[in-house]
Amino acid sequence: MMLRVTYGDSPVNDSIFELGLERNAANHAALSPLSFLERAEAVWPDKTAVVHGSRSFTYAEFGRRARRLAAALRARDVGPGDTVAVLAPNTPPLLEAHYGVPLVGAVLNPLNVRLDAATIAFILEHGGAKVLIADTVFAATVREALGRLPAPPLVVDIDDPERLPEETAGAHVGEVEYEAFLGDEALPWTWPADEWQAIALNYTSGTTGDPKGVVYHHRGAFLNAMGNAITMGLGRTSVYLWTLPMFHCNGWTHTWAVTAVGGTHICLRRVDPVLIFEAIERHGVTNMAGAPIVLNLMIHAPDAVKQRFPQRVDVATGGAAPPTPVIAAMEDLGFRVTHLYGLTECYGPATVSAWQDDWADMGLAERTGRMARQGVRYVTLDGVSVRDPATLDPVPADGTTLGEIMLRGNTVMKGYLKNPSATDAGFAGGWYHTGDLAVTHSDGYVEVKDRAKDIIITGGENVSSLEVEEVLYRHPAIVEAAVVARPDEHWGETVCAFVAAKDDADLDDDDVLHWCHDHLASFKVPRTVVFGPLPKTATGKIQKFVLRERARVLR
Amino acid sequence: MMLRVTYGDSPVNDSIFELGLERNAANHAALSPLSFLERAEAVWPDKTAVVHGSRSFTYAEFGRRARRLAAALRARDVGPGDTVAVLAPNTPPLLEAHYGVPLVGAVLNPLNVRLDAATIAFILEHGGAKVLIADTVFAATVREALGRLPAPPLVVDIDDPERLPEETAGAHVGEVEYEAFLGDEALPWTWPADEWQAIALNYTSGTTGDPKGVVYHHRGAFLNAMGNAITMGLGRTSVYLWTLPMFHCNGWTHTWAVTAVGGTHICLRRVDPVLIFEAIERHGVTNMAGAPIVLNLMIHAPDAVKQRFPQRVDVATGGAAPPTPVIAAMEDLGFRVTHLYGLTECYGPATVSAWQDDWADMGLAERTGRMARQGVRYVTLDGVSVRDPATLDPVPADGTTLGEIMLRGNTVMKGYLKNPSATDAGFAGGWYHTGDLAVTHSDGYVEVKDRAKDIIITGGENVSSLEVEEVLYRHPAIVEAAVVARPDEHWGETVCAFVAAKDDADLDDDDVLHWCHDHLASFKVPRTVVFGPLPKTATGKIQKFVLRERARVLR
Repeated sequence: MMLRVTYGDSPVNDSIFELGLERNAANHAALSPLSFLERAEAVWPDKTAVVHGSRSFTYAEFGRRARRLAAALRARDVGPGDTVAVLAPNTPPLLEAHYGVPLVGAVLNPLNVRLDAATIAFILEHGGAKVLIADTVFAATVREALGRLPAPPLVVDIDDPERLPEETAGAHVGEVEYEAFLGDEALPWTWPADEWQAIALNYTSGTTGDPKGVVYHHRGAFLNAMGNAITMGLGRTSVYLWTLPMFHCNGWTHTWAVTAVGGTHICLRRVDPVLIFEAIERHGVTNMAGAPIVLNLMIHAPDAVKQRFPQRVDVATGGAAPPTPVIAAMEDLGFRVTHLYGLTECYGPATVSAWQDDWADMGLAERTGRMARQGVRYVTLDGVSVRDPATLDPVPADGTTLGEIMLRGNTVMKGYLKNPSATDAGFAGGWYHTGDLAVTHSDGYVEVKDRAKDIIITGGENVSSLEVEEVLYRHPAIVEAAVVARPDEHWGETVCAFVAAKDDADLDDDDVLHWCHDHLASFKVPRTVVFGPLPKTATGKIQKFVLRERARVLR
Repeated sequence: MMLRVTYGDSPVNDSIFELGLERNAANHAALSPLSFLERAEAVWPDKTAVVHGSRSFTYAEFGRRARRLAAALRARDVGPGDTVAVLAPNTPPLLEAHYGVPLVGAVLNPLNVRLDAATIAFILEHGGAKVLIADTVFAATVREALGRLPAPPLVVDIDDPERLPEETAGAHVGEVEYEAFLGDEALPWTWPADEWQAIALNYTSGTTGDPKGVVYHHRGAFLNAMGNAITMGLGRTSVYLWTLPMFHCNGWTHTWAVTAVGGTHICLRRVDPVLIFEAIERHGVTNMAGAPIVLNLMIHAPDAVKQRFPQRVDVATGGAAPPTPVIAAMEDLGFRVTHLYGLTECYGPATVSAWQDDWADMGLAERTGRMARQGVRYVTLDGVSVRDPATLDPVPADGTTLGEIMLRGNTVMKGYLKNPSATDAGFAGGWYHTGDLAVTHSDGYVEVKDRAKDIIITGGENVSSLEVEEVLYRHPAIVEAAVVARPDEHWGETVCAFVAAKDDADLDDDDVLHWCHDHLASFKVPRTVVFGPLPKTATGKIQKFVLRERARVLR
């Protein structure tokens, strides 16, 4: 193959440095995170790779289990272009799927365990899942979701022996349990010839109507894992606690990064401060990650639960900026907090509020203010820039001019699945448009000032106000509805609904909440319902900014 | 552009995960180490980037100087496909050239400062250098080399204000001094559209015939820098002392890796134990690298020079396996040694003797034996394998079957410049053939037993010259040793040892032979011992071919 090399306008493919020096099998390979587990299995076969309650797997076992999963999938004719969905907490099967699924060339689609059956059904159908691997604690939801599908996928049940005492498993939905499905055969390691091949499919929570399917490729997964390893300083002795859902951007690609350095994964079925402190102590955890709500839970745990540790624990947080009291309280507990920023569309973290030496001399508020900025690009991202969404001109670095955060580079998604108009809009002008409004400070650090207005972030989960409004509007007694974020110390934000009922309707909070529970994942259900006429502009548009202010001062 | 994605034999370009999800300006960028300095300049403008004697540059200054160099080169019409050679010790101009030269799309050709004029002339002509930037201490050699060229390049003199007292500058050879050449204009950062574009040209030392020009690309430079950052655990607080020549594989790509993490480069004009210990103490050095000879120099420094440091200093060594006494003595001094293996053809380090926890419990000899193995592949390399050079079958992992170390992946060169037959031979069968003979141990670690030429066959028995050398190095009075074959009518070959003893040592043949008899099978004991300094290549490698010739004519 003749390789055409260009530099600006001048092709240099006839240069002595290009002619006869094309790619070949010895000097070019697709970048793929599959290579991480292949290597770890070979280099550290006897090292503990994965711990899950009383079970643990060495890297030899982890690698072999992933390769057994691949063999089982191939036996079911799962291959390139196929989708395998997984609905599971942070347990070994979901981690194994990050390698076993792409090993047969298929695409991993981890599902948010908090989704309702209707949304799961939508995703399974839209993503074309051929297989669904699901933990039995979600059996009821899975059964309901499958009932909505004209052609349900093969279902594999995970009957986790490390289920928590308070969890209840449903009856098996599928024809085979995960451990039996794995079988004895194990595929050898290979990876795709093209690093642009899809590796994962992650659905956004859907700001406007249906969720969108974000497609990742092997190149981006490899590079963001490298970026995370370098940013978080991961290495052979790292012990990583899974407080971050693996279904969020493939655990921000930490599923791959921790394996790349030969660290140890500590699984966790539930974000519970008792379990977290216990795990940190027992396993010598050095790294963890999660939304600020996770940090909040730890801070507000009873004193009897809280412990201090001999090792320093690095906590990467993102999804929302960590407030000063959260950073301060975590530091008091002996943790070091680093703020990352990103979205599903960019493999999780894309920027970091990189530490500057002179911050150490600042007062608490100033220092944590700096730490809470979104910061600067990862070394593996090409560019981050705050720009005027209309002209694409960068805003001045004055700390006050608002623009939209835009990203470009290899860790930006391939695009949205079967959604060319959203893909085109997202990439308009050669930048990915995040929808987050921000400023650029004089030191070049970016800071988000306002989330895209229709998103409510509660407990680290994105809730689309439009989706909740749509459900409310479907209630026969509701005339108008508007949903906004209500600030909350514990959850960051909660969902607050303003509802105008029919004149003759006998509607109360409970009616509305029951209705929502029947039609929405529970984390999307409003915490607050306020009845009354809605404020409107002269042209009849509901004035959300007025409602936001009302929600802010609600008692 | 339609992207064709394949997996094995089955094209999946019509998959829903590929159609409409092609590369675009927002989601694909060429990997290039230029992005490292662009980022460091923006993120850490006021941080110390480069220290050179009494001078130092912040990242803002380092970045700007590189961009000024680029502007100056462009003003001289240097661009894509052109070559810029640099002949300099580890000083700021050579570091700046690692960014300024590729910024105009040109190829950096760092020259070994120990080369003679004839070889330099050969390289300048073969590589097509359009510009030569040269330190004035090499003025005489440069002038002689230029005299051999029909069309000499533009010469830029570096008149280094931090020249050492014992160094003598020659008269300027060129028309302009480096600082004046830089000028005031600075190019903005850009990088090539194609990551396969050449970035550097590094000549092998040429043990057989003319040196060969090894061509690197941006992709490989980016990836090996990432691999080094992860393998060496580099981060923002790393302080890297330049004991390794930057002209060796671009300083094993540390020129780029240290910048990627925002660490600090400490320049060093000369590998001198006094300067090294002084620099480690003054600058709080955390990382350094070099051939075992550098470690040897430090170990054998006078006690008055040696110091202990509060920080741990990590030393990456390669080019030859570090003998047990060298590792032990460095550890006694408080350094931690990691053995890397690689060649010019693979951007420097390609494998690492990755630490295993159970090594800590081993006795010194066993542990350092493990540490001295070539080990396992970098996380950024695709594969390392010991294979039969004829059949390309991997040898069994039995620790005894000899084969040739072969490498494949993105950090293997594009090929040899204007040398298709050497390129084809080097890549035969889809692996890069290193020419190093090795075994694979049961734990998968590879260990070099010898260069193909270094096996001595005496009386039908194979003797590894490395094994004999290792025994000689352990003798307390021996500083350096090399073992070669001496032709012999009766035995075919006999073992011949060349030994450099400590200055004050009272060492004779009998001492050496007794020592060997105590530690080796008798057929491996040298028949001949020759005392005196050992001849070295410009890169500091012992010139075994010179010793072979001496052994051949010995009486």
